[in-house]
This record gives sequence, structure tokens and C-alpha cells, in this order.
Amino acid sequence: MASILPASNTSMRSDRNTYVGKSFVHIKNPYLDSMDEDVLYHLDLGTKTHNLPEMFGDVKFVCVGGSPNRMKAFALFMHKELRLADSEEDIKDICAGTDRYCMYKIGPVLSISHGMGVPSISIMLHELIKLLYHARCSDVTIIRIGTSGGIGIAPGSVVITDEAVDSFFKPRFEQVILDNIVTRSTELDKELAEELFNCSKEISTFPTLIGHTMCTYDFYEGQGRLDGALCSFSREKGLDYLKRAYNAGIRNIEMESTVFAAMCRLCGLKAAVVCVTLLNRLECDQINSPHDVLVEYQKRPQLLISKFIKQRLGLLDQTS
Amino acid sequence: MASILPASNTSMRSDRNTYVGKSFVHIKNPYLDSMDEDVLYHLDLGTKTHNLPEMFGDVKFVCVGGSPNRMKAFALFMHKELRLADSEEDIKDICAGTDRYCMYKIGPVLSISHGMGVPSISIMLHELIKLLYHARCSDVTIIRIGTSGGIGIAPGSVVITDEAVDSFFKPRFEQVILDNIVTRSTELDKELAEELFNCSKEISTFPTLIGHTMCTYDFYEGQGRLDGALCSFSREKGLDYLKRAYNAGIRNIEMESTVFAAMCRLCGLKAAVVCVTLLNRLECDQINSPHDVLVEYQKRPQLLISKFIKQRLGLLDQTS
Repeated sequence: MASILPASNTSMRSDRNTYVGKSFVHIKNPYLDSMDEDVLYHLDLGTKTHNLPEMFGDVKFVCVGGSPNRMKAFALFMHKELRLADSEEDIKDICAGTDRYCMYKIGPVLSISHGMGVPSISIMLHELIKLLYHARCSDVTIIRIGTSGGIGIAPGSVVITDEAVDSFFKPRFEQVILDNIVTRSTELDKELAEELFNCSKEISTFPTLIGHTMCTYDFYEGQGRLDGALCSFSREKGLDYLKRAYNAGIRNIEMESTVFAAMCRLCGLKAAVVCVTLLNRLECDQINSPHDVLVEYQKRPQLLISKFIKQRLGLLDQTS
Repeated sequence: MASILPASNTSMRSDRNTYVGKSFVHIKNPYLDSMDEDVLYHLDLGTKTHNLPEMFGDVKFVCVGGSPNRMKAFALFMHKELRLADSEEDIKDICAGTDRYCMYKIGPVLSISHGMGVPSISIMLHELIKLLYHARCSDVTIIRIGTSGGIGIAPGSVVITDEAVDSFFKPRFEQVILDNIVTRSTELDKELAEELFNCSKEISTFPTLIGHTMCTYDFYEGQGRLDGALCSFSREKGLDYLKRAYNAGIRNIEMESTVFAAMCRLCGLKAAVVCVTLLNRLECDQINSPHDVLVEYQKRPQLLISKFIKQRLGLLDQTS
């Protein structure tokens, strides 16, 4: 990374990154350190208006998910699980000044919403990574806990992603930079995926598996659904696509994993994607399970991640 | 459209579409009418659980924008402007059962949020278009009222889009369908843009212009910003790209217009994009104007659209 930094900043950043045993979150932008102020517009935070190291310096786990309500529920759940001294009422939305994203901090855990789709999570990730960098965070693990459509597995199954692939089943993310297309790797942290899978073995109430995850740019035509406002392919063609995806090792489809994997990898964040499947796409297109069933499904990745975090923090014996 | 419908539904749909002088919202999906129930999952509405014709049959104007708070503010503003009999407290979020989008109805006006980016607005549009179709709405005008980055124009200017273009300055939207890429036209309604521009001439408090709008897949690298977590191009390259965009007729950049134009066009909705610019990208990357200035900017498209709707409804003399 040092090679693309301007000379004036190299020494400082170099010190920061070689601090014994610590792996700092880094940015890949030679211009950022020369800015007088960095306004993280969509988070309603900034380097002049907020003391980011004080607010976020101790963050070790970042959990992200599409829905603001779900990420608030996860924050409240983690607060209970970690048995922190502060009261539940103290858990306030740190980004309350904007309605683009919400953010909660529970001890070393940050819970943030990212909306739906690659562009929406990409804006959040740019600003989150800068936040963690400005706050001098180290050894940060980031996990997307989301919902998805399953392929050939029972609804309610949890998929830990070993490879995030695009609509063409390729493990890549195509980033448009100005008017060039740059292809980035979507490799996720293998050890982290294994660690999460080992955690899941202690949970008997739902199945968890490791598989490829396909990331698409829309929910209807791009995922082979026959129930959108537009549908120009036959039932057979749609099903054939999903079966080919299954044969390529894909077990679920969502809309954020490729850019999430690509950006986290470039910035030194160990990343994992853990999504529950709400339906089996080889059987149907519509999500029409009863509300309470869907709510229970959505708690499953949260349960797994809570177990993982408690294990990492050495709290598992006391609380489980 | 009739040609892609299954025979059993042709007559009904044909009747519907030829009703004297009315232009109905249509879908382009031969499977939809054979479905026993259509669950609009991300809107928390459905054909069995809700009487959509009764709830939405009179909708004539749909206004969409990224931020839920802004779309609620627009609903309250329209309620005041249209001088409807019901009280402000009656304006409830119709999609309160989900936090993916929010929706408010004020007489013939629907105000809906769509989040950020092409995938997020695309999910909403699929379900909105199906909603308008199920509700048998006719002669519907849809307008995106958003925020954007300006190119070479004063911050606070309002841009009415004559052409939505992609990162390569082309008026097209590339939709991935299964593993094929289909290119769609992003043509918007010229007469509607003219009508809006004529309305704007009566507003002296801010400048409004017609220009091309560029739609990108991210806010940082894709828009030539030097202040993201990642930046691999030089200041000169970034500025050169923005200047080339200006020379190609582009006056602002946002993240939803191409798919919005493409989908509305295919489904018989007369569509316009009206965005305020929060900064001039030839001068800076960061949005750091004072909060109250940005709030006032964001009211500008609302003011213009309110004027347009009142004019269409013949209410302008009484209320302005």
C-alpha cells in the first residue's frame, strides 16, 4: 500500500501499520490524509465534528445487514448477550442525523444497516472503512448477516459464503472507475469461514452450510424470477439457470456480497458473509412464508454471529 | 404488449387498455395474471391481503426519492398544498410493516422512497408497477425527485433530465437477465420535461435547467471522487472525466435514473427525473454545505413538482 501514498504520509502510515501484532484497517487512497476534514456524509459523521478514535477506537467486530430494523434488533440482542453494564436505552442510532443508514455500538461490536444492492452497500463501506481508519481500529472482523434466496436447500438454512460470485458464476466484482471497468477479486477469509462453520456445529436448531453465494443487481429478472413487472424468459429457461447455478456450487443468491468481499479485502478487513435463505428458488419465486417464520429465520445468522463473537471474547462459558 | 400475454388473459387486458382515452399502467410479464396471489414482499402489500384497486385506483402522480424522511416531508407538503380535507395525522406510512421502503398517499399523489442505487430502486419499481397494474391505475405520471452532484452549475440548481446516460455517457441501461445482458433505452417523456421546465419559469427563487443526467453504480470511484476509501486515479484524470461529461451535455450525476427511465418506459408510465444539485463537482468532492442550506436545496424539486401537480389538477389559481 505504501507505494501509492504520497511521500509526506508514508512514515506515519507505515508506523501505524507495523505496530507489533496489530493489523490496522487501511485505505487505498493517497489523497485522504491531506484533507483538512473528512465528512462522512451518508453516516452524518466527520473528522472535525466527531472524535472518531474515542468513539470507535475499540471496535473489533462490525456486523452489517440490509434492514435498519434488523440491525437494531441485532444490537439489542448483542447487548443482552454481552451482558454490558450500560442500559438498553443507551443504545442509540449513531447516524440518527441521516436516514440513509443506521448504526449502533455495543462494546466492541458495531451494527450497521446498508440498504439493498451493490451501490447502497458500497457507499456505506467507503464511509465505514474511512471511519475505522480515522478511528485507528485494528484487527477488525466484518460480517454481513443478511437474507437471501436459497438454491436447492431447505428454507431457513444458513449459508456461510466461501466464494462470492457474479451473475455469470465468476468470483469477481466489476468496478466502474471513471469510464474504465476494473475487475476485483471477491475472495473472502477462509479461516474466518471455517471458524464460523465450527461455531455453527454447536447449534442444533437450524442447518448451516458452506457454499458459493451469487450476487445480482436486481431481485427479479436478474434472479430468474417469473413474478416481476417484467419477465421475458420462459419458466424452463429460468429454472435451467438456477439449476446451472446449483451445479456451479451456488447455494444462495443475494445482492451485496461481491462488492462487500472486494472492498473489505482491499482494506485489510477479514470478511465473511452469513445469510439465511427465506425460500428455495428451485421451488418458488415469492416469499410468502408466515411473518413469524420469516422473523425467526432472520434471527438465525444473528445467533451464530453472537456465538462467534462471544467465543472470540472468551465469554462463551459464562453466557451460553 | 398483447402478443406476449397468454391467450386466457388477452381479452381482459385488451379491454382494459383500449378503454376510451385512458392509458393503463401495464406489466410485461405473461405469467403474472395466472398467479393466484401476488405478494409485493418489499412493500408489505399483496393482492389477497389488500384491496389494491380501492386503495390505489385513483393514483395519478407517483413521486419517488431516495430518502424516506424526504418522501414523508414531501407527502406532508403536498397535503398542505392540495388542501385536502383529512388531517395531517391521517398520513400514515402504507408500508409500515417493512423498513425497506416507505409510502404515503395524498389524494391522487403517491410518495415513495427507493433507497440508494439502481438495484434498490429497481426492486421498488417492479413492485410499484405491479401495484399500479393490480389497482388498474391509468394515466399515471411518475417523477423521481432526488439529490445529485452538479457538473459546472451552481449548487442548488435543479436539473430536469432530458436524457439519462450511463458512466460511458450512453443513453442506455444494461439489464442482466439470467446470464445475458440486455440493453434498454433510457428515453424519458419529452413533453413532460418541457411541461416541468415551463412550470419552473414561474419560480424565481432558484435556477432550473434541462440537461443530461449520468447514473453511476457508486458514489466514489464511479463518480471520480478523490475522497473514498479507495482511489486509484489522479486528480487530473478525475477532473478530465467530469469535464468530458460536461462537454457531452451532462449537468448532474446520481445513481438511479437509467433503470428508472428504462422500466417506466416499458410499462407505460410517463416519467421525469428532477434532481437538485448539492455541490459543483468541478470544484469539490465533499458535500459540506451547512445542514440548513442542504435542507433548503432538497425542498426545491418538491416545490417545482407541487406546482406542476397543482397545475395539472387545475388548482393553481386557488392556492398559489
